Amino acid sequence: MDIPTTMQGLVLLHDGYSTAPATQELDDLSPFVAFREMDVPQPGPGFALIKVARAAVNPSDIAFIKGVYGQARVAGHAAGFEGTGTVVAGDTPLLGQRVSFFAAGSGSWADYCLAPIQMLIPLRPDLRDEDAAGLIVNPLTAVAMFDIVREDGADSFVVTAAASQLGKFLMGLGKDHGIGALAVIRRGGQTDTLRELGAADVLVTEGDGLAARIAALFESHAPRVLLDAVGDQISADLFFAMPERARWISYGRLAPKPPVLTQLPQFIFKQKRIEGFWLAAWLRETAPEKIGAVIQEVQARFAEGKWHTDVTASLPLGDVMEALPAAYAEKDSKVLIQP
Amino acid sequence: MDIPTTMQGLVLLHDGYSTAPATQELDDLSPFVAFREMDVPQPGPGFALIKVARAAVNPSDIAFIKGVYGQARVAGHAAGFEGTGTVVAGDTPLLGQRVSFFAAGSGSWADYCLAPIQMLIPLRPDLRDEDAAGLIVNPLTAVAMFDIVREDGADSFVVTAAASQLGKFLMGLGKDHGIGALAVIRRGGQTDTLRELGAADVLVTEGDGLAARIAALFESHAPRVLLDAVGDQISADLFFAMPERARWISYGRLAPKPPVLTQLPQFIFKQKRIEGFWLAAWLRETAPEKIGAVIQEVQARFAEGKWHTDVTASLPLGDVMEALPAAYAEKDSKVLIQP
Repeated sequence: MDIPTTMQGLVLLHDGYSTAPATQELDDLSPFVAFREMDVPQPGPGFALIKVARAAVNPSDIAFIKGVYGQARVAGHAAGFEGTGTVVAGDTPLLGQRVSFFAAGSGSWADYCLAPIQMLIPLRPDLRDEDAAGLIVNPLTAVAMFDIVREDGADSFVVTAAASQLGKFLMGLGKDHGIGALAVIRRGGQTDTLRELGAADVLVTEGDGLAARIAALFESHAPRVLLDAVGDQISADLFFAMPERARWISYGRLAPKPPVLTQLPQFIFKQKRIEGFWLAAWLRETAPEKIGAVIQEVQARFAEGKWHTDVTASLPLGDVMEALPAAYAEKDSKVLIQP
Repeated sequence: MDIPTTMQGLVLLHDGYSTAPATQELDDLSPFVAFREMDVPQPGPGFALIKVARAAVNPSDIAFIKGVYGQARVAGHAAGFEGTGTVVAGDTPLLGQRVSFFAAGSGSWADYCLAPIQMLIPLRPDLRDEDAAGLIVNPLTAVAMFDIVREDGADSFVVTAAASQLGKFLMGLGKDHGIGALAVIRRGGQTDTLRELGAADVLVTEGDGLAARIAALFESHAPRVLLDAVGDQISADLFFAMPERARWISYGRLAPKPPVLTQLPQFIFKQKRIEGFWLAAWLRETAPEKIGAVIQEVQARFAEGKWHTDVTASLPLGDVMEALPAAYAEKDSKVLIQP
């Protein structure tokens, strides 16, 4: 295949981690990445080179470029964890095929990127590029966390930031398996959408009498799992209002102000627990057959229309620096990069 | 046996739970219990009547009388969870024998109390009354929590309020099993005692540069379990300074001010966890043979001098109202009630 020697990409400006506190808001990309001409990376053993068709912009990407994700940055590498494209080099039978991938070494916010061969996902032809671009991070996180909900055995569960892509995926999973998602959102605008997607109940945190409305929610429902991407005091208040043996599973942090553990004795007398979920750890700890089965399920859900990626904008690489912050601020749907 | 119809005891004044915030400090008993003449209770099926020789005063008793323990109060019943004495009535082969017991229905801060027959522990003759009075709550909690430490597999663990009776028991367990207890205490006075009991290291939280001293502690040691009876910001800071996969196990709360979760992403990226330990739940969930083995181990440790109950005061029932608060304020040893 005809591969150029140089390409365009969004390059990380810093190494390692940041010690400055940071939220997942994004006002300006320029402190973190730059749009640059760079060498097309060479795949070493076990790696493939992908011509990127579309790359995803996830909260984990934003945390990563800021240096507050659980993985160290390497200055000079392109940013971007996942995407879809065509395999153009590497020792794999998938050469020439359309795949979803999880990048490593050289990221997906570029014309070309590197991905471990074992993480290439050959795609069903009926899967849209818009869905294939974000096939791994949010969908796998949703299915893996929903497994925790299923194993727990309660007939409902709580989801904060419920209008996010991941939140919407969870609504659908809950609906299909008869486990009611209790959707928690800041403002009321998405209430009807969430109910249509399958939410059993919707709690809007804006407005008066929140404590009483939380109490009422847990009189009607007895969930034991809180899937939380926010990490603010409302998350903590929900957790402490939940029934015995409740588990607060943190998988992201949108809030700048840390929560206070107002009801510490509940860990003892109500056997509650706080823990985290990280897809990278889940992938390390889960058997490959199980991961394969989950990926099949994810593709089927998109192809059959049970899930749908709502795209706010597909930005060319040259527009990202200027246009991404505003597009990303539209929290409830997805921004893609289209090299 | 010659059992009177009335007796003296310390009677609970309130039903159920309190909603007022409360710590485990004790300034005055009179809002919670009263010293009274009362009927000797009658043991129903499955229960024994015990003539109390000595009753323990534990932090859980103080939380209970205040209505902030995980069990509802019944006004008119005597307070007091555990003690030692002689079985004087009930359908049990232990009639006439010296036992340790966990009271139910009518508590141990009285001349006589009720205890479920299955929770009676026949005693080795070489066990002192001072040790037998508190044979269950602190010793079983220590051994059960130390099991968590052993299963975890790290070669050290952290204990806050380390100069408490329970803390001292944990020092000895750590020493005997070659797992270094890192003792955390507020003031320096007990440092030598804790080292003699087997602490691998002692951290005094009073004084300058605590953050740096915490960091240094976890450069020398890599514990993954924090056994915590305090629940303040220092507990949280210790937890967040600990290595990956650290577990903060809360089993009590001495601090009035709730901690802030300053490092929420550690639940995700470092796979940390907060949970609780409650002996009542452990007893429900653990096989009777295992509980029996633990009780044998506890008696042996006391009889062989590996553990020792340091008694501040043994108070007659009539002195408790006036003398208990001051005696209980001596946090580092035990107060007993001697009817």
